[in-house]
Amino acid sequence: MSGGTLGLIAGGGELPRAVAHAARAEGRQVFVVPLLGSSTENWVRDFPHAFLSPGEPGRIIKALKEAGSEDVLLAGRVDRPKFNEMKLDAKGVMLLPKAIAAAKKGDDALLRFIVGICEDAGLRAVSVAQAAPSLVAKEGLLGRVAPGADHQADIEQAFKIVHALGKLDVGQAAVVCEGLALAVEAAEGTDAMLARIASLRESLRGTEDKRRGVLAKALKPTQDAKTDMPVVGVETVKEAHAAFLAGIAVEAGAALILDKQAVAAEADRLGLFVVGVKP
Amino acid sequence: MSGGTLGLIAGGGELPRAVAHAARAEGRQVFVVPLLGSSTENWVRDFPHAFLSPGEPGRIIKALKEAGSEDVLLAGRVDRPKFNEMKLDAKGVMLLPKAIAAAKKGDDALLRFIVGICEDAGLRAVSVAQAAPSLVAKEGLLGRVAPGADHQADIEQAFKIVHALGKLDVGQAAVVCEGLALAVEAAEGTDAMLARIASLRESLRGTEDKRRGVLAKALKPTQDAKTDMPVVGVETVKEAHAAFLAGIAVEAGAALILDKQAVAAEADRLGLFVVGVKP
Repeated sequence: MSGGTLGLIAGGGELPRAVAHAARAEGRQVFVVPLLGSSTENWVRDFPHAFLSPGEPGRIIKALKEAGSEDVLLAGRVDRPKFNEMKLDAKGVMLLPKAIAAAKKGDDALLRFIVGICEDAGLRAVSVAQAAPSLVAKEGLLGRVAPGADHQADIEQAFKIVHALGKLDVGQAAVVCEGLALAVEAAEGTDAMLARIASLRESLRGTEDKRRGVLAKALKPTQDAKTDMPVVGVETVKEAHAAFLAGIAVEAGAALILDKQAVAAEADRLGLFVVGVKP
Repeated sequence: MSGGTLGLIAGGGELPRAVAHAARAEGRQVFVVPLLGSSTENWVRDFPHAFLSPGEPGRIIKALKEAGSEDVLLAGRVDRPKFNEMKLDAKGVMLLPKAIAAAKKGDDALLRFIVGICEDAGLRAVSVAQAAPSLVAKEGLLGRVAPGADHQADIEQAFKIVHALGKLDVGQAAVVCEGLALAVEAAEGTDAMLARIASLRESLRGTEDKRRGVLAKALKPTQDAKTDMPVVGVETVKEAHAAFLAGIAVEAGAALILDKQAVAAEADRLGLFVVGVKP
């Protein structure tokens, strides 16, 4: 694909770094705009970059165009900004009322709004799948451990829950154990959701000796896969293990796996399955 | 209503006690069967009772009939039993395979199964609303604090989420703050769900100074209101306050409020609204 330099507007979390490295590994130039307040880390220093606020869309677009970007990707977690404390440029002041209205409709609406501003300025919004296709989950097993027949029903039920919630812009993940929904993700994120499984009554969940239950992650139907795709990494495998789960199912083609080799190795070591499913 | 003595099969939590006292206050005899392993408390000693296991349906039905019950109500939280450790009578042994199959379909299915056994034995299953109508939430405000116009959208969105989840037998409660789903209830219960709100990023939730967000509780569409109706009590008001919420909305006619006077007084004291809504 063409598109010149990839313009990567980077929020928090591991996704933006993985995208930047994967795109560069495929031979592409990458210019990063880490969003102020998103706790992006040192990795951006390895790339040409410019720190800017989400309230400075004029400067963001200018920086991307000067870097030769035609494609733009917003990746990573963006906290709902405190609009009254945000650094603003002229375009930001003008668009502020619309941004506040979008934020009220949910995080997805706010992200789509930011992407829309870039598109209005002539940039092309691309998805992670387009910018870094090697990260996308494929159908089938990732490691050597396979789900049992008893896990299939839990995988299906968990995807049903995530899809129902996703339509309401709630979350991307759920845990189901033998038909019972143990946990559903909202604003706390997948890590915090997994962390509370171990404190449920023992009769409901797995144990050290007998792992039970499945984590499912899927794309929200309200998303267009250009912003906040669900992500599984080595940490997710460790957290699922600590929650006594039997495995992880992700939506093939619509979820990302950061460092597939490392995820497969960790899943094998801990005895969990990781599987891509077309729900 | 007739029905003789109310046969109350009691799980854990505050609901069974409230039902027993409310039914007695309306002049009815009450016979309690506290389920072993459900951590029912000392209150049952105030009523004629017989401690039995969920695996002894034969003995449960016999005890209820000897006490003159024609109506039976299963109220309170019933942990999914460890079938291999459960005390069983002859009928229990016979029904065990069906009970295990029901438990796999979720908690509601298991409760309906137990109620069904009583119905097959000629008892009439009644709802909490029938046995203790004074507990049912009515439409309108309970205390003096009213929700603002900005809370109405959150109330509607929270009910949408709870209804979508309820169809999948997930949970009965959700918290929404200015359009964003902060938390969704699954197996952890409403108390644990509220307890995690305060650990979310401050930009997402209310604070000591500015309360934001709404807790909504509604009946699962998969329920027939004869088993596990959503319940709000004084503790719920305290927990919602600790989660920096602005108020609580319950489904009028389909949720229970334990001790309405005390709930209204506590809500007024803490500055929260409690409102019954027909969603």
